[in-house]
Amino acid sequence: MTSPTSLSVAEAVRRVRAGTLTATALAEAYLDRIAADEPRIRAFAWLDPALVRRQATAIDAGTKLGALAGIPFAIKDVIDTADQPSQYGSPIWAGWRPRSDAAAVAAARKAGAVIIGKTVTTEFATRHPGPTANPHNTAHTPGGSSSGSAAGVAAGFFPLAFGTQTSGSIIRPAAFCGVTGFKPSYGTLHRAGMKVMSESLDTIGVMARDVADCALAMAALTGLDHGDPTAKPGRAPRLALILEPAAADAAPETLALIDRAANSCRRAGAVVEAVRLPEVVLAGYAAHPAVMNGESAEALGWELAHARAQISPTLRDRMDEGRAQPAAALIAGRRAFAAARAAFPAAIEGYDAVLTASAPGEAPEGLGWTGDPAFNWLWTLLHGPCVTVPAGTGPKRLPLGLQIVGRIGEDRETLAWAEWVRQAVAG
Amino acid sequence: MTSPTSLSVAEAVRRVRAGTLTATALAEAYLDRIAADEPRIRAFAWLDPALVRRQATAIDAGTKLGALAGIPFAIKDVIDTADQPSQYGSPIWAGWRPRSDAAAVAAARKAGAVIIGKTVTTEFATRHPGPTANPHNTAHTPGGSSSGSAAGVAAGFFPLAFGTQTSGSIIRPAAFCGVTGFKPSYGTLHRAGMKVMSESLDTIGVMARDVADCALAMAALTGLDHGDPTAKPGRAPRLALILEPAAADAAPETLALIDRAANSCRRAGAVVEAVRLPEVVLAGYAAHPAVMNGESAEALGWELAHARAQISPTLRDRMDEGRAQPAAALIAGRRAFAAARAAFPAAIEGYDAVLTASAPGEAPEGLGWTGDPAFNWLWTLLHGPCVTVPAGTGPKRLPLGLQIVGRIGEDRETLAWAEWVRQAVAG
Repeated sequence: MTSPTSLSVAEAVRRVRAGTLTATALAEAYLDRIAADEPRIRAFAWLDPALVRRQATAIDAGTKLGALAGIPFAIKDVIDTADQPSQYGSPIWAGWRPRSDAAAVAAARKAGAVIIGKTVTTEFATRHPGPTANPHNTAHTPGGSSSGSAAGVAAGFFPLAFGTQTSGSIIRPAAFCGVTGFKPSYGTLHRAGMKVMSESLDTIGVMARDVADCALAMAALTGLDHGDPTAKPGRAPRLALILEPAAADAAPETLALIDRAANSCRRAGAVVEAVRLPEVVLAGYAAHPAVMNGESAEALGWELAHARAQISPTLRDRMDEGRAQPAAALIAGRRAFAAARAAFPAAIEGYDAVLTASAPGEAPEGLGWTGDPAFNWLWTLLHGPCVTVPAGTGPKRLPLGLQIVGRIGEDRETLAWAEWVRQAVAG
Repeated sequence: MTSPTSLSVAEAVRRVRAGTLTATALAEAYLDRIAADEPRIRAFAWLDPALVRRQATAIDAGTKLGALAGIPFAIKDVIDTADQPSQYGSPIWAGWRPRSDAAAVAAARKAGAVIIGKTVTTEFATRHPGPTANPHNTAHTPGGSSSGSAAGVAAGFFPLAFGTQTSGSIIRPAAFCGVTGFKPSYGTLHRAGMKVMSESLDTIGVMARDVADCALAMAALTGLDHGDPTAKPGRAPRLALILEPAAADAAPETLALIDRAANSCRRAGAVVEAVRLPEVVLAGYAAHPAVMNGESAEALGWELAHARAQISPTLRDRMDEGRAQPAAALIAGRRAFAAARAAFPAAIEGYDAVLTASAPGEAPEGLGWTGDPAFNWLWTLLHGPCVTVPAGTGPKRLPLGLQIVGRIGEDRETLAWAEWVRQAVAG
């Protein structure tokens, strides 16, 4: 008998609801995987198998089985949980026990998910890394800041996880770990109970093995129709190929991947055309650091005043920069964001989505640096949906990802085109 | 000798920095006022005079005196404080002690403010009221949800306070209590550590005795130039007079006030012209309940699941409504907001600001209902700055307010025109 960990989320839920699989059996199967590999991967900031079992037992004893009934769901540790510590990747918050679940966690529980643990985040979802390793090669970073969520999905520890993204914290680690990452349109998942850093940028999203699982999770969490990405659309997409403004950062394997992907998509019937972004959109990109650092320094006001010595030197420097810049730079940056957002739909008019890279290349070697978010900043500040799908490997046999980006609100369509692209490239 | 409680914030700070007034003396003077009147007003959800004195002593012992040095600053109890309980107006959160200060509180402390206590909020800043009475007549509501902040400024308990606004929770209580309320452009004060309900709407702002104190506080908190509202501008403003879409809700005293204000402003040189709002802006107004209730129900996911019996019936009903509406209504509502925001600048092109009412009339009798936010919804969702200034009294001798509204980012200008209007109307 194959392990229930190999089931898609849809199939596992179907079986739990039909009574042919218990939440307990599913949880035990995932806990076995964790027991075997967690010492090597270190995806968890907190894991309490007994608590997981109690949740699964409660699902099995329940009568109302939701859209995620019994599904193990991991929570990035910048998102609060009432029954598990929430430590934000910082010694300042060691052992912290919030009173309540974050809104997103409450939504997952309401749908019947089993909260399997808290996953490692970089310090406050910024750069200073945690201990997590890339399951494809533990000498390499899994990416960040949603390091444990990406690595845990890749290692088979859970089929669904929350990530959050301020610059590239969902898409990049998902690509590095060879899983699917979805950053929805800004504001889709409520941030109450999240340790928000940049109010203008921070977005909660999901990671899973494939696009269909991401769509199912988002539908269960929000009640919104996210479609069935595996259903064949009636036509091929028109894709705007855009590597700007980070094209110069792309490694050779990424340039080769983009070429290959464009050709595969064309062979499958798509129109793929290089599109140049107008200056106003690029100006939004240039403003990203001012807004991210300025808002994050405000968010960490208490930590900077009361626990400065417990903040990593990297983050302290960035926060000091954020505070040193004129306050007007923050306002100007937000205005640049708004202008970029307003101009973007016209820039890709006539196209269904953007095709771009998820990261400059494969996951860098070493666990000290989670990699460059150059291919993510712009799309995060534009507030539309972003999906990364696995697309082969690079010279070190580590995963590469392709990123598909849509307009604000076109989450369902963007998921569908991402799956279309994935299939076209997988051939 | 006059009490230091009669000093403007600017003058009190000047004296503290010059060494002619101690933070301790200032705190003691305000604590005296509180001791005398708090039993009647009940503005505080938490007050610890010993803690206030310790903070004042620390300011007096300090060498770096900030822009709010020694100023007693009250915090609406939906905003976290590390040294005082944060109970959100709900028995579910009784005795809750956050580990950190909210970003806005950290900013106030950094500027040298003395956090004088937590002020009464309605339940989670929604409708179910707290015990606070209106200082002008304790048989009347102070308005809400920032009830204690407005009443406390009016009662002379502190010169500055934070409020928050989702529909009308800063402007209405400030008007009812005869003080000045300022809701900045959305996003100006970071919401980290606030119990956010509606991500699309919630905005932190300030209350004070006059516009100059509001501007000084905002400048100290943000580092942004908020100008000097008392400086005479070189010209009179062009004001768009708009009572839509709530004109039918205006009490006779409000219609009379608006007439009087328009005439006074014209006599002082202003252009005051009735302006009609386009349908797309009014459609934003119509969408307000769907977004507010939908997002708030998401925010309270944990409370609804784990402590439903401790939620007031009023709020429970609204949250159930929020959950019962199709998820797509929330998305459609946010889209309507965005369209309204995009259309608004053109709707008031050629005008410096909007002149409108702050509330339908005087504060209603009784403490069971905090009044109608009909005159606030629209301006909150448009995300621009809103100021209410005191403008005489109504038939029951309770305060009335005039509201001046600006475009996003025109906070300084809107504060200046609000002071201009106040002076013109005061004659």
